[in-house]
Amino acid sequence: MTGHAARDERRDDYRWRIDIPTRWADGDPYGHANNVVYYSWFDTAVTRMLFERGVIWLPDSPSIGLCVESKCEFLAPVEFPQTIEACVRIGRMGGKSLRFEIGLFVDGREAPVAVGYFVHVYVDRATRVPCALTDDQKASLLDLVAEVSPA
Amino acid sequence: MTGHAARDERRDDYRWRIDIPTRWADGDPYGHANNVVYYSWFDTAVTRMLFERGVIWLPDSPSIGLCVESKCEFLAPVEFPQTIEACVRIGRMGGKSLRFEIGLFVDGREAPVAVGYFVHVYVDRATRVPCALTDDQKASLLDLVAEVSPA
Amino acid sequence: MTGHAARDERRDDYRWRIDIPTRWADGDPYGHANNVVYYSWFDTAVTRMLFERGVIWLPDSPSIGLCVESKCEFLAPVEFPQTIEACVRIGRMGGKSLRFEIGLFVDGREAPVAVGYFVHVYVDRATRVPCALTDDQKASLLDLVAEVSPA
Amino acid sequence: MTGHAARDERRDDYRWRIDIPTRWADGDPYGHANNVVYYSWFDTAVTRMLFERGVIWLPDSPSIGLCVESKCEFLAPVEFPQTIEACVRIGRMGGKSLRFEIGLFVDGREAPVAVGYFVHVYVDRATRVPCALTDDQKASLLDLVAEVSPA
Repeated sequence: MTGHAARDERRDDYRWRIDIPTRWADGDPYGHANNVVYYSWFDTAVTRMLFERGVIWLPDSPSIGLCVESKCEFLAPVEFPQTIEACVRIGRMGGKSLRFEIGLFVDGREAPVAVGYFVHVYVDRATRVPCALTDDQKASLLDLVAEVSPA
Repeated sequence: MTGHAARDERRDDYRWRIDIPTRWADGDPYGHANNVVYYSWFDTAVTRMLFERGVIWLPDSPSIGLCVESKCEFLAPVEFPQTIEACVRIGRMGGKSLRFEIGLFVDGREAPVAVGYFVHVYVDRATRVPCALTDDQKASLLDLVAEVSPA
Repeated sequence: MTGHAARDERRDDYRWRIDIPTRWADGDPYGHANNVVYYSWFDTAVTRMLFERGVIWLPDSPSIGLCVESKCEFLAPVEFPQTIEACVRIGRMGGKSLRFEIGLFVDGREAPVAVGYFVHVYVDRATRVPCALTDDQKASLLDLVAEVSPA
Repeated sequence: MTGHAARDERRDDYRWRIDIPTRWADGDPYGHANNVVYYSWFDTAVTRMLFERGVIWLPDSPSIGLCVESKCEFLAPVEFPQTIEACVRIGRMGGKSLRFEIGLFVDGREAPVAVGYFVHVYVDRATRVPCALTDDQKASLLDLVAEVSPA
């Protein structure tokens, strides 16, 4: 991602943040949040940011972002009732796609509990055919693009 | 519901059945399926039946059913990897609404692990205004209506 | 519940509150939060409160609360990225059980989007045999008990 | 993974299979199954296989597998009420870890709807310290190990 290892990622390596409280049902029989739920935190952080920036919205933005690839490295367990601090940057802004890189942090600890990414391809809402990001969409996200080199 | 207590409900008290395997993430930190997940089994059983009977479908049936009330009595824990046998009857067929009564069974045991209901009001898909069930919709569900008196 | 209808419930009818932001995956193909998710908000609000009050905790509180019955009346749709204000009171404090009554509110609107309840029976964590609430447990919840008459 | 691209993976590239029916709540506001849910299908397929083979079990197998990394490439949408055919092979059997490779297929179509992996590190259930896979555990999984070269 940024040239350093997943567990060396820090909040300052990201550009946008949101708090996501854990839910009781996030936990699995091992007592900690299930691995699947981390992706829901990724998905929620990215989509909240995109709504906030006016890139997509419900129910009728012309285009929507579909997830074509995601990955997560799980570094530490998370337990109810911790609150996740989800941090986002854009690792690559393509013509029709965006690669979001996400770090999840808890309890003021420096090291992340998880690090991963999430690639969106933008498609026409009705036809689901890939379409170019507009200049407005790109401009509204520009400050979130990481200077670091692409993965 | 049928005049006897929840734990006395039997598979034969219902008219339609589907198997729903548990998922690992259904479990919560107490080791068994979380209470919330039982409603997903209700929701899935009812919607599968409605799709199968052609009452509603994705993405463009004229009307859709919105849940306005649901309830569950939890009688026994469920554990991964058990498979749920979800049994459905229609407890009340109204002009614009249906009350589905559901019993969940596992492992060939006679007594249910949960019993509950789920009330749908039918609305126009676009306007979300309540609308009458059509004669075709009613006819396709008639064999699922319980003879027992309404709750 | 309190003698007035579900849609007449107000925030002031409850004693404890928590904000729960919606997640993108809460939405279903009808565009709004799925009915099942409302129970996850109930479950999360109640469990957060019980942890905060020291009634139960992970991983080793002597007793845990198992949900034996829940119900929800759905009054209005919820859409991402709304934040739920989940309000809780205790409708009945029994010897071995608690009935939590919950109202969900959004966007500063007076009327609730959903109203329901959630009944916990307390059991020994290891044996899962029902056990009496201790005086300490009861004392820590006393201010949340509604004066209103039981349902 | 196997030297060919994700969308060229076929059922025959895997060694173990299970059907997982979609649930209504799997769908998100775009009408198809949410990206997060694919990981729940991965997680469920892998865990079902591990239980079936006696590698881990609830509530007291000496060791448990914790997910330390997962990835998914999403190739086609999935819609309720489709049933997922989840196919699993072991891409790498390490001393303390297993890399499961998963392909998801629907409706008898040749090409997968998603391909990904899921890495488990085995830890002592109580202490959560990594521990070696036993000879019995390895033997019970040997037929699932792919001949293909490690990723």
